[in-house]
Amino acid sequence: MSSPAAFLGPEGTFTDAALYVLRPDLTSEQRLACDGVEAVFEAVRSGAAAVGVVPLENSVEGGVTATTAELLNGDPLLITGEVTLDVRFSLVAREGTHLADVKHVVTHPHAQAQCRGWLGRTLPQAQTLPAASTAAAAQIVAEPGSGYDAAISAPIAGERYGLRELATDIGDRSAAATRFVLLSPPGPLPEPTGHDRTSLAAFLADDHPGALAELLNQFSVRDVNLTRLESRPTGDRLGNYCFVIDAEGHVVESRLGEALMGIRRSCRDVRFLGSYPRGDASVEIPTLLPRRTATDTDFHRAQEWLERIRAGGVS
Amino acid sequence: MSSPAAFLGPEGTFTDAALYVLRPDLTSEQRLACDGVEAVFEAVRSGAAAVGVVPLENSVEGGVTATTAELLNGDPLLITGEVTLDVRFSLVAREGTHLADVKHVVTHPHAQAQCRGWLGRTLPQAQTLPAASTAAAAQIVAEPGSGYDAAISAPIAGERYGLRELATDIGDRSAAATRFVLLSPPGPLPEPTGHDRTSLAAFLADDHPGALAELLNQFSVRDVNLTRLESRPTGDRLGNYCFVIDAEGHVVESRLGEALMGIRRSCRDVRFLGSYPRGDASVEIPTLLPRRTATDTDFHRAQEWLERIRAGGVS
Amino acid sequence: MSSPAAFLGPEGTFTDAALYVLRPDLTSEQRLACDGVEAVFEAVRSGAAAVGVVPLENSVEGGVTATTAELLNGDPLLITGEVTLDVRFSLVAREGTHLADVKHVVTHPHAQAQCRGWLGRTLPQAQTLPAASTAAAAQIVAEPGSGYDAAISAPIAGERYGLRELATDIGDRSAAATRFVLLSPPGPLPEPTGHDRTSLAAFLADDHPGALAELLNQFSVRDVNLTRLESRPTGDRLGNYCFVIDAEGHVVESRLGEALMGIRRSCRDVRFLGSYPRGDASVEIPTLLPRRTATDTDFHRAQEWLERIRAGGVS
Amino acid sequence: MSSPAAFLGPEGTFTDAALYVLRPDLTSEQRLACDGVEAVFEAVRSGAAAVGVVPLENSVEGGVTATTAELLNGDPLLITGEVTLDVRFSLVAREGTHLADVKHVVTHPHAQAQCRGWLGRTLPQAQTLPAASTAAAAQIVAEPGSGYDAAISAPIAGERYGLRELATDIGDRSAAATRFVLLSPPGPLPEPTGHDRTSLAAFLADDHPGALAELLNQFSVRDVNLTRLESRPTGDRLGNYCFVIDAEGHVVESRLGEALMGIRRSCRDVRFLGSYPRGDASVEIPTLLPRRTATDTDFHRAQEWLERIRAGGVS
Repeated sequence: MSSPAAFLGPEGTFTDAALYVLRPDLTSEQRLACDGVEAVFEAVRSGAAAVGVVPLENSVEGGVTATTAELLNGDPLLITGEVTLDVRFSLVAREGTHLADVKHVVTHPHAQAQCRGWLGRTLPQAQTLPAASTAAAAQIVAEPGSGYDAAISAPIAGERYGLRELATDIGDRSAAATRFVLLSPPGPLPEPTGHDRTSLAAFLADDHPGALAELLNQFSVRDVNLTRLESRPTGDRLGNYCFVIDAEGHVVESRLGEALMGIRRSCRDVRFLGSYPRGDASVEIPTLLPRRTATDTDFHRAQEWLERIRAGGVS
Repeated sequence: MSSPAAFLGPEGTFTDAALYVLRPDLTSEQRLACDGVEAVFEAVRSGAAAVGVVPLENSVEGGVTATTAELLNGDPLLITGEVTLDVRFSLVAREGTHLADVKHVVTHPHAQAQCRGWLGRTLPQAQTLPAASTAAAAQIVAEPGSGYDAAISAPIAGERYGLRELATDIGDRSAAATRFVLLSPPGPLPEPTGHDRTSLAAFLADDHPGALAELLNQFSVRDVNLTRLESRPTGDRLGNYCFVIDAEGHVVESRLGEALMGIRRSCRDVRFLGSYPRGDASVEIPTLLPRRTATDTDFHRAQEWLERIRAGGVS
Repeated sequence: MSSPAAFLGPEGTFTDAALYVLRPDLTSEQRLACDGVEAVFEAVRSGAAAVGVVPLENSVEGGVTATTAELLNGDPLLITGEVTLDVRFSLVAREGTHLADVKHVVTHPHAQAQCRGWLGRTLPQAQTLPAASTAAAAQIVAEPGSGYDAAISAPIAGERYGLRELATDIGDRSAAATRFVLLSPPGPLPEPTGHDRTSLAAFLADDHPGALAELLNQFSVRDVNLTRLESRPTGDRLGNYCFVIDAEGHVVESRLGEALMGIRRSCRDVRFLGSYPRGDASVEIPTLLPRRTATDTDFHRAQEWLERIRAGGVS
Repeated sequence: MSSPAAFLGPEGTFTDAALYVLRPDLTSEQRLACDGVEAVFEAVRSGAAAVGVVPLENSVEGGVTATTAELLNGDPLLITGEVTLDVRFSLVAREGTHLADVKHVVTHPHAQAQCRGWLGRTLPQAQTLPAASTAAAAQIVAEPGSGYDAAISAPIAGERYGLRELATDIGDRSAAATRFVLLSPPGPLPEPTGHDRTSLAAFLADDHPGALAELLNQFSVRDVNLTRLESRPTGDRLGNYCFVIDAEGHVVESRLGEALMGIRRSCRDVRFLGSYPRGDASVEIPTLLPRRTATDTDFHRAQEWLERIRAGGVS
């Protein structure tokens, strides 16, 4: 049990659920709930945890902004895995509570906002009060003598705190997916699977007009699709920008390797954030810059041709 | 008092402070604290409020993801103003409390994470507990007989709830700026000031390779700089993307007008989000795609030249 | 007969044939053979001729380089028409000469090179001597007592000088097409036909990195296809470049008009060379930058949308 | 004397002068005047000559179109050298002829056009007649009993045919430079000199929108400047295009090697035309796509960084 996995706690968050999917092998003793995204990073950086899990995109519980900030600053960690989960809310209560009994609901304000329609229709008389997270809400309800009748939370929070589901999937719109990433200290990368993603941050040079277009071209001339692109002020001073980028493929592939070298040459700095299996193995076909496939075989043939040319051949 | 201004509450949030900067003319009766970003949008859409204020970027209290989602979906609102505030945390307490007395601190987990260094050095024995927002934390502390000794919050929260500052600017790093926007129903745009920003969302056509490069070109050929660029899945199905964009200039300018027409022609859809005075009036010179200036005079001269050419002239 | 048409002479050149196609209405008195491309331009500039015809691309008799130089320098003329002719060579001789009699052939060296295979197979014993043009060769053969038995020339040269065709289409490879243009003084442009071409020369600014990419973008964001692109040193000093461009469409169309205005704003100088019906009305589909169609209706709708947006509307 | 050098003849052409600059070591027996550009290519392809010289750009005697056609078609040859000469015309005559005696001038029509001003001012009464080339004109004048008094030609033609210069540099405008290239059979490339040029032809894929922009990007992301760019119909059918390109640098450099591999992967076909020392060693700084320098050291450092990253490092 020397190497636990840290996650954005408390127990029962959507991040806890993500860790369960990413590392089903772990015992509950090996799962370390942390108070805040920063604490998860700190646990992995200090060696207190071997890996960590945090939300990266679209979380209902915050964490996105903090996660990106931590990835870009401080000692580098690598993303070594990801999973995308649908955000589905349940109403959970202590054993014996019936829906008709629910007068006081507790949850995170974002969850409240997303379940407003259901609450208005189903529990028009109930009062809803805020908690620091949906998991904290479930925890509060689970306490003996709690003044709250039910919590809106992830289904997993109900299980963690021994509560019963009074209603499931009560969000007003079809669930927004949230993407969680697995963090590891620098070390061997995950093996390429043929369905990978590579993340990086490119810091543009100050005095370089057209820098963004060049950055995109570095990918497109190697037929690398992007799946996410986001500008961020770098914070060190106003007017400086970096781009956080997700691209298809693994850094051991020629197309990604060449693209990263090009970015390294043309940007002020670049931080490699990892190559890892895509969590959305089945469906997504990103359409940002689709082109041809460019396999290692394609690159190898072009290399052979170049060598013939350099030796005085003509084709 | 028929047209209040809605803001992300409760009273004492950073958003409350932003509203004070944006609309200092309002009385406290004209300020409507809302429970969640969605509620602010709803208040403006329904006419319950004349305007609303929400955080758009880098907030410590969440709201960014929700704000963008609301801007892109539902009945359109226009951004008619913005302000960027430094996020500075204070430790606030009831009158008579001294720093040495503080055993129980309450705040939002993000704020706690950002003040961890100060807390460890200054209040190593204190326990910190979560609240739904920094303002809610101040509110809790202000209650008579509260079990909490102090809250970490925005300075304004201390004022709103009659608390005293025990310490100021206690964040571990120099403050991250948060950008807030003023929302209005569709209607006359703010007059151009010569230092404006235009926001929009462009929905790429599915089957259009190179669509992102074309989108950027629509701006660059008109010498329009971008100040923010962010990809977002559109949510209707996987693999569809839109880009949320901030650009320099006002839509009444020729350069912006022509660029928007080009995007309208080439994208599946485009949602105009507003033209408004920039809040960072003094310093920022965005460097994404800097080029020349392209004033209305430049466009007018080119138009005159075109008319001469079309009439059979040669220059 | 006050306004003759000048052409690159002497009578019987391929240019003479092109003039016949472009202006079949002219009498022979109205056709003015000029000695050199420069002389054709001079005739139109001075008013000695109302129009002129010169080869622009791929001529076997030279003229391309000179034509471009004249289009770019000196008083501007407009291209008002074009025709593309296959270059087909005939062996022409005086009445009574038979193929077996031919011992001395005269022609332009380019024509000789292109008929070398046929000459070697059919007239292995014949000697071939150079003339200044294929038409001059025919003229020489037509002189009574000429020392030459036959000329290689355009079929039209045989007709012009009363010679008989001994063999037709004797070029070694399938005929290269040559493109000829009709020149006019500045004045009303030809009406758009829906199948037009626009020519221009863009002079890049010295100190403008990425200028070529920007130039191409000015066209591509308006969905204008290019059909020809050629860099040329401007001659005023080394390292300065201009681009000679042919684009689909007519300058009265919105897509062309907006693109030209963009180039006018971003380049050091631009010379408009004309909008005119395409000579290759049937088949060619240029594939340089194909995109969508962008009709005047498309531009008009985008303009209407912009006006609604500027008035405070949202779509 | 087993390996002569072929050139576009007859003796005394500007091409002859270019050969003298490129290969001053050759004896007159080693110089093989050819009748047409095609004949020069044929001599090198067949082994009748070890090398050949032809004009490539801006020749007053034609050859440009033919040269490009031969470079693109038939058995490949490599460009292994180049020189750029100013085109300066002289009036040359037999010994004993004085300027006042000149009544009949012979020259190529292009040369006549370019000396028209001087002829009109200096020899207003003289008649000018055409020859197949300026060198042929000098040859004609040199014949005993020639009916012509003087020829307009390159200075070298006077020397070759034993004529005397009556006037020098008589062209109307400052001389246009003509660029000549040295052709060799496939074999070892010239060593890189640090000031080289690489030529190639890229054949775009039919069905590939935006192909030209991608082609240019392949160079620009590797910081390779272009010095010439020209579209050409490929001839096999209408609507197919290739681009003839000159780029800075030598194919043994990383930046050129990587760019060529990218083009090889993305185009239907690419023909390498050679890497060779630039003839304009002193002044020209092409400004098409200037960027940074990208030396082999820059590429090597990026490669080392990539290897560290792939091994699990972070910078």
